[in-house]
Amino acid sequence: MIQVFITGGTFDKEYNELNGALYFKETHLQEMLEKGRSRLELQTETLFMKDSLEFTDLDREKIQAACAAATSNRILITHGTDTMTQTAEYLANRIQDKTIVLTGAMIPYKFGSSDGMFNLGSALAFVQLLPPGVYISMNGKIFPAGHVRKNLARGEFEAI
Amino acid sequence: MIQVFITGGTFDKEYNELNGALYFKETHLQEMLEKGRSRLELQTETLFMKDSLEFTDLDREKIQAACAAATSNRILITHGTDTMTQTAEYLANRIQDKTIVLTGAMIPYKFGSSDGMFNLGSALAFVQLLPPGVYISMNGKIFPAGHVRKNLARGEFEAI
Amino acid sequence: MIQVFITGGTFDKEYNELNGALYFKETHLQEMLEKGRSRLELQTETLFMKDSLEFTDLDREKIQAACAAATSNRILITHGTDTMTQTAEYLANRIQDKTIVLTGAMIPYKFGSSDGMFNLGSALAFVQLLPPGVYISMNGKIFPAGHVRKNLARGEFEAI
Amino acid sequence: MIQVFITGGTFDKEYNELNGALYFKETHLQEMLEKGRSRLELQTETLFMKDSLEFTDLDREKIQAACAAATSNRILITHGTDTMTQTAEYLANRIQDKTIVLTGAMIPYKFGSSDGMFNLGSALAFVQLLPPGVYISMNGKIFPAGHVRKNLARGEFEAI
Repeated sequence: MIQVFITGGTFDKEYNELNGALYFKETHLQEMLEKGRSRLELQTETLFMKDSLEFTDLDREKIQAACAAATSNRILITHGTDTMTQTAEYLANRIQDKTIVLTGAMIPYKFGSSDGMFNLGSALAFVQLLPPGVYISMNGKIFPAGHVRKNLARGEFEAI
Repeated sequence: MIQVFITGGTFDKEYNELNGALYFKETHLQEMLEKGRSRLELQTETLFMKDSLEFTDLDREKIQAACAAATSNRILITHGTDTMTQTAEYLANRIQDKTIVLTGAMIPYKFGSSDGMFNLGSALAFVQLLPPGVYISMNGKIFPAGHVRKNLARGEFEAI
Repeated sequence: MIQVFITGGTFDKEYNELNGALYFKETHLQEMLEKGRSRLELQTETLFMKDSLEFTDLDREKIQAACAAATSNRILITHGTDTMTQTAEYLANRIQDKTIVLTGAMIPYKFGSSDGMFNLGSALAFVQLLPPGVYISMNGKIFPAGHVRKNLARGEFEAI
Repeated sequence: MIQVFITGGTFDKEYNELNGALYFKETHLQEMLEKGRSRLELQTETLFMKDSLEFTDLDREKIQAACAAATSNRILITHGTDTMTQTAEYLANRIQDKTIVLTGAMIPYKFGSSDGMFNLGSALAFVQLLPPGVYISMNGKIFPAGHVRKNLARGEFEAI
């Protein structure tokens, strides 16, 4: 069984047609899993729905506490890309005995051109096979926490 | 580097608006990888574009020969779902030293509701991590060749 | 108030992922109207769901009877493109006092690249303004019954 | 022949994946017409690409001058919804001898759920049939300039 924690991020952003702004309504994870015809045994929990640029220390504590309390040793976290590497390092410093994979999207799922389905597929595969540790799954690749940065100019994750 | 062999399947089917039939024009793999913002180093080759129900022994020989000749030890094959398990067993009996993952889709990529992006993401993740062997990646899961069947009534793959 | 009669056609076809065939499940008209944020007062009725190549005389009688019995003088009919011109002529010979517009799609609505939303928007505009008569609304144009054919090679409607 | 003037608006907004903001790159009108399989004879010109909340008097002058100079008597203007009614009144006070229809979208075309294709289809139908005057085509309806407002709470246009 895989535990999934939802924290928001571009993944789940929607377009508010009344004011033209992007916002969070509810997660699309279940819809995405159905579209992907996933048959994995998952337990899903929405911790909060935030742009990761607005994450506070308290939010990261909350994620860490949720991971620590999870009965499953395999955890997927959906997360905004902007501070994904920070959260990964934060978790890597605090949890050693579980396989934790963070993923997200550059384009909201609800917009036609989203990379969300691809990233979700990759992340769910990686979390099944990797040994304990904290990782980021983006752009089809897997990066250990602390060895990856988001290249802001290209909108891609790369090894450091 | 990952070698990708394209063989057709629902993945790549399109709707012919002139006669209402489904057909193959060209692969959408490159488009899918761009949409997924993949940064994996891939080498792609279209072996043929066929409905897997129409695969002959010669077609499977061709796939096997391509796998054997590939310089990469990690190979992804896009394949129709109907005889995917047969091809997997065929390859498993003939190639032992490479990691080969077969994947496909229940719905064509060009139709809005396709599981293709999810499956492609999963398969590319699995092929990076698995030890030598032949596998099927569908529904978010990984199955070793010979231990999986397509449940025709549900349109899902399941372990046997 | 506009009366809408649904008769099937490519508009409403879906992909059956279990056998790879196209089929009718239910109409997508309501979903399309919501997507278009239509605020028109419509009354909708599904007469049947058929490929128009399989229409019998009885089917055309049924459509004609429904149009004759409708309390509204403005009627939209969704219809397969293959015999749309025949049905238009059939109705034109039998009903003179109502504005009847037939429309359809070359690509199913459920497939990303459908012309359905565009055609629905056009047809609903035309049916509001045109004088009594039977018309076909396709490719952004309006054609009176009897003066239009489907160009099978191009998949377009053209004046004759 | 129909003259089309593009002025921006939600219609043509895109998502910038690098900073998460919405912006204008280029118009999608040609792509939309192709998707709709339009066979109308159109002449298209981009006047500018702006959010209509940022329109100045100069912008409206520019639109008016373009309409006045157009050789066609039938003109479609794509326009942001926020000040569409103002531009319509501005034009109605200055141009009497042409049929001018303004339309737009509540959701960008590039996002899956856009009403753009439906509105474009309607507007192109209305502009072919209406007598000289300035109109707004939204929500499947047609409104004469000066007799319509955008209901901000509902995101719909309604008669006044």
